Amino acid sequence: MGETPPFLADPESTRESIMRATYLALCEHGYAGLTIQRIGESFEKSKSLLYHHYDDKDELLLAFLQFMLEQHEASVPKGAEEGAAERLDTVLDAMLPPSLSDEHEGFTAAMVELRAQAANDERYREQFAEHDRAFHEQLVAVVEDGIEDGTFADVDPESVAQFLSSVINGAMTRRVSGGDDDAVTATRTEVDAYLDRVVRAGDGGAA
Amino acid sequence: MGETPPFLADPESTRESIMRATYLALCEHGYAGLTIQRIGESFEKSKSLLYHHYDDKDELLLAFLQFMLEQHEASVPKGAEEGAAERLDTVLDAMLPPSLSDEHEGFTAAMVELRAQAANDERYREQFAEHDRAFHEQLVAVVEDGIEDGTFADVDPESVAQFLSSVINGAMTRRVSGGDDDAVTATRTEVDAYLDRVVRAGDGGAA
Repeated sequence: MGETPPFLADPESTRESIMRATYLALCEHGYAGLTIQRIGESFEKSKSLLYHHYDDKDELLLAFLQFMLEQHEASVPKGAEEGAAERLDTVLDAMLPPSLSDEHEGFTAAMVELRAQAANDERYREQFAEHDRAFHEQLVAVVEDGIEDGTFADVDPESVAQFLSSVINGAMTRRVSGGDDDAVTATRTEVDAYLDRVVRAGDGGAA
Repeated sequence: MGETPPFLADPESTRESIMRATYLALCEHGYAGLTIQRIGESFEKSKSLLYHHYDDKDELLLAFLQFMLEQHEASVPKGAEEGAAERLDTVLDAMLPPSLSDEHEGFTAAMVELRAQAANDERYREQFAEHDRAFHEQLVAVVEDGIEDGTFADVDPESVAQFLSSVINGAMTRRVSGGDDDAVTATRTEVDAYLDRVVRAGDGGAA
């Protein structure tokens, strides 16, 4: 998730307009500062529509997370026009960029806050479990393709995917909660070393 | 941070008693469910002491984080009785255990919630920046020792430390927000592969 996701730039339905307003309000106010009122300030249609569809901000945010997940799954190319290594690079470039715009930083911080809701709220935990599962399956598929075409060594795709998800999550979390951009860049350097030495076939490769 | 930290088991001062009560209340109620009232329920002395010292729960929690940091720094052995690889293993064993007790899981979830406060609250951001810096320096020192005694290849200690902090943070965060124990165990497997192939001197090592 880089800049404003394209499916939010030009909403075509009331649902998409609500999701766009939620995204913009999250970027600006974060979770703690969010109210349905503030989402309404970014909403181009009648605010009564918001109250009509959603009882409180958590119900709206859970719908937003579900919407983001659906859009993400629809946007992941199923075919493999590119090689596995390039596809993995594309994911890492998107998730561990060297710097963030204000909008992207605001959104990342909001996602960290939303994820923390999962610590105590079963609805958020289920939503993030689904999110993690989708991202995990995307990574597993890339690694499996790489093993099949001989680009990658005979690694365990499940382990590699879990590991990459953990690194990405941790770098994003630390970036907005005490860390800095250098921490992300340094993390990426070592992820690349891991991919070179452990995952890629060739000089050494995994056992 | 494994089970109940030893310095909390047997409080010797009012401050330590307050910190112990805060720890127990955090484990049980998390951040969102925490109130000074609930901390008072775990406090053995007069509750008026709590209100006397701290205006609200955030002030008390920031003091708690500072206390944990001081205790952690005091408990890290400065000398190197063990080798660098063993010390790194000890840190990873403590931070990425294969399973968590209820108390430890409650505390981990609370720490994820507290870290999310840093997304919008400068005081928490400064506190976690200090926490991250201390943990980073601990890791850098271990890696430097390993390079010096020839156990580790000529890696960049700063990068390795940032990378390990990211992995640990991400695995902990995912564990309590949608992931499961398997995700942590798989992450650890690949961290060990990284340490073997990239960090340890010998067959290949880093360039």
